[in-house]
Amino acid sequence: MQIAILTFDGFNEIDSFVACNILNRVRGWKASIVAPAARVSSRSGVTVEAQQPLEFAASSDAVIVGSGSKTDAISKDRATLDRIRLDPQRQLVASQCSGALILNALGLLASRRACTDHVTKPLFDGTGIEILERAFHADGNLASAGGCLAAPYIAAWMMMRAAGEKAVRDVLYQVAPIDEKDAYIDRVIAAVKPYVALTALQGAAS
Amino acid sequence: MQIAILTFDGFNEIDSFVACNILNRVRGWKASIVAPAARVSSRSGVTVEAQQPLEFAASSDAVIVGSGSKTDAISKDRATLDRIRLDPQRQLVASQCSGALILNALGLLASRRACTDHVTKPLFDGTGIEILERAFHADGNLASAGGCLAAPYIAAWMMMRAAGEKAVRDVLYQVAPIDEKDAYIDRVIAAVKPYVALTALQGAAS
Repeated sequence: MQIAILTFDGFNEIDSFVACNILNRVRGWKASIVAPAARVSSRSGVTVEAQQPLEFAASSDAVIVGSGSKTDAISKDRATLDRIRLDPQRQLVASQCSGALILNALGLLASRRACTDHVTKPLFDGTGIEILERAFHADGNLASAGGCLAAPYIAAWMMMRAAGEKAVRDVLYQVAPIDEKDAYIDRVIAAVKPYVALTALQGAAS
Repeated sequence: MQIAILTFDGFNEIDSFVACNILNRVRGWKASIVAPAARVSSRSGVTVEAQQPLEFAASSDAVIVGSGSKTDAISKDRATLDRIRLDPQRQLVASQCSGALILNALGLLASRRACTDHVTKPLFDGTGIEILERAFHADGNLASAGGCLAAPYIAAWMMMRAAGEKAVRDVLYQVAPIDEKDAYIDRVIAAVKPYVALTALQGAAS
């Protein structure tokens, strides 16, 4: 399982690295920082090296579009968008916070609804996209999360979809705070499991 | 307010970057990735550039010792330890997970107790250090957290100590999951506030 974490200049460290760390704990899974240049710098000036170019997303099994301080401009940059080829028919695709702007620019928000953060929300005014006041939402293979610290929800959703609930519990146990692990795991699973169950039902009915 | 986030080869991305992102949101604060080399790579192979050398910790107002897959070896490497000069008399100092091994190697666990993760805990056997089964603990200016996702507790403790509870609430509001913000903020504040209150009482009594 290859997961591409799209990370642009001005990126939010929580949005790219929390899911990266969690997903790399699943046996046989490889989550990579995928960027438009050899190096990108975060909103607070931390520079990281890309592990893969943007084009890697097209061949990945799952993709997370990260957030950052320049996402609005990036979502209008046709040259960058043309390098991102995503297909929710065969990939799990998720956006974190302002990453939803890029999913929309790519024409992927077919459900016309998504989660994002409070700063990004007004940028969807007039687009016809309904911004949901919740931390996580998924329609089939397309998910979105709002609020940086909702990043574990995206990771948990991908694990539950592609590795099962036991993998979610085992991996979250490794990263959850000491003495709060059971409550933390239950909270995350409660946030994502209804969407996974609904997708399974829809798959069975189709 | 300068905060040094000590980040070693094999580092855990959550442990270094979550606090970095949160603390950089406080007006006038600068949290930097501080490393022993110009570049360090995470446990899953993400390479980041150091923003400051290890020696920067000595002149910082606050220091977080991050965690990682090689911390046990680093905590026995005298050449590296000699570059880290910390003084909890004048600095806020915190360790995340296996970072407690480094605080102990530096002789800073004067209280003989700390939080860490379940993998690191057995490495304290025979040291006389009591490992607490909780996510966060502080004795005066020295704090420790256990479980990667306890990282916001360290950030919140530093903000409450040096910027006040309103700053904690304002900054956590920016990063907490949508529709869970109040509950999230209350949970984090409940975890750290008793320690801040106790330190204030001890300061008033001394």
